[in-house]
Amino acid sequence: MSRRWRIVVEYDGTDFSGWQRQVDQRTVQATLEDAIRDMTGDAVFVRGAGRTDAGVHADGQVACFDLALEIPAHGLLRGLNSILPRDLAIIDVAEADPAFDARFSARGKVYRYTVWNHFVRSPRRARAAWHVRELVDMDAVRNAAAALVGEHDFRAFRASDCDRRTTNRLVRRLDVERQGPLITIDIEATAFLKNMVRIVVGTLIDVGRGRIPQDTPARMLLTGDRTEGGMTAPAAGLTLLRVIY
Amino acid sequence: MSRRWRIVVEYDGTDFSGWQRQVDQRTVQATLEDAIRDMTGDAVFVRGAGRTDAGVHADGQVACFDLALEIPAHGLLRGLNSILPRDLAIIDVAEADPAFDARFSARGKVYRYTVWNHFVRSPRRARAAWHVRELVDMDAVRNAAAALVGEHDFRAFRASDCDRRTTNRLVRRLDVERQGPLITIDIEATAFLKNMVRIVVGTLIDVGRGRIPQDTPARMLLTGDRTEGGMTAPAAGLTLLRVIY
Repeated sequence: MSRRWRIVVEYDGTDFSGWQRQVDQRTVQATLEDAIRDMTGDAVFVRGAGRTDAGVHADGQVACFDLALEIPAHGLLRGLNSILPRDLAIIDVAEADPAFDARFSARGKVYRYTVWNHFVRSPRRARAAWHVRELVDMDAVRNAAAALVGEHDFRAFRASDCDRRTTNRLVRRLDVERQGPLITIDIEATAFLKNMVRIVVGTLIDVGRGRIPQDTPARMLLTGDRTEGGMTAPAAGLTLLRVIY
Repeated sequence: MSRRWRIVVEYDGTDFSGWQRQVDQRTVQATLEDAIRDMTGDAVFVRGAGRTDAGVHADGQVACFDLALEIPAHGLLRGLNSILPRDLAIIDVAEADPAFDARFSARGKVYRYTVWNHFVRSPRRARAAWHVRELVDMDAVRNAAAALVGEHDFRAFRASDCDRRTTNRLVRRLDVERQGPLITIDIEATAFLKNMVRIVVGTLIDVGRGRIPQDTPARMLLTGDRTEGGMTAPAAGLTLLRVIY
């Protein structure tokens, strides 16, 4: 009789080829599955709430798996963290209801995007922020961002290979803050399309540096035209902050 | 007629073998000197305010060098930063008085040491913080730290191979703060002995986790006995914040 476990995972995504297991790639899922097999002898499938891209970080990714071995939660936590590499750790472990599914039970996710907005790049922030040299006009960004809050068709804000049939998503919150040269953009939504956060951020920053008009994000919701938007912001600036259940 | 330049340097020390040029090692000084030679054709000696150890970071290291080439400050800044690697940048450049010496003109330095004090390690802070698992008693640390402020003989707080003849140093400030699991220890002094900050921090943290008595740091100033102190805290937690002139 196996038990279902729910884990919260933190990682520096720089040296991972994303979440999902791929042949000959160092991925978060594969690293977790290998550690669990090394420790318990069980070959498990670890299901993540969100399949983060290569280079994307997580402060609170959530995942689940089933384990035949009977082991206390703190033993699992300590044991796995002693096996896992320096850039990946399990920060919480709890037994979960057998019906719990890290992906399908999720009611929402919060991502944070960080921009280093300064004339000079910052070596100490290079792994976790996008360096934007031109001064970003925060009023313009906030005005443009306001149009994206609520339920909309976000098909203009997804990767060309995104295969979801429904493209309506509910953005509950989109907060833009500046502290000196650091800009943070927090986005909470029920679910996201592929590259949605990075295209939203790339478009908002392009508005903020005057490359595209302020009303473009609102228009993109109506036209569905990706080509009107800005660049896809680099993966390094993105962090999965937490998953809401 | 060459001109003297003063630069402020930021680096992630993780992948550097410290500041000082050494044969076959990737060091900050050598990387800067090579970049300046590549850009200007001048073989220069770059003199740093402090020779940080391998793995130690800097938000505001200061250095100086002489250049024959006539070039505007912003051209030097942009040009060098385009050559320098991702983990090193010059964040300010200014022409300096010919009498300015980054090391000997310095009137003080401020270092910050960061501790991640939590049961579970943090992958995203692993490059820039020391992970201490046992809960640190902040009152004990602050009491012990207070004894170190002022002018004292710090010979008990230096590396065994430190060859300075005078070991009196003036600690102007030693501030210990906690924000959740993050402890920061800021130390400002006129000058430091080799490994002084890391031995002070290692000793204070060992006081805070009950491994050595609270009055030990004060006693070490009197006895000069390094063996009474704590471990030398790891390099990764240390950052040279700024140099005072």
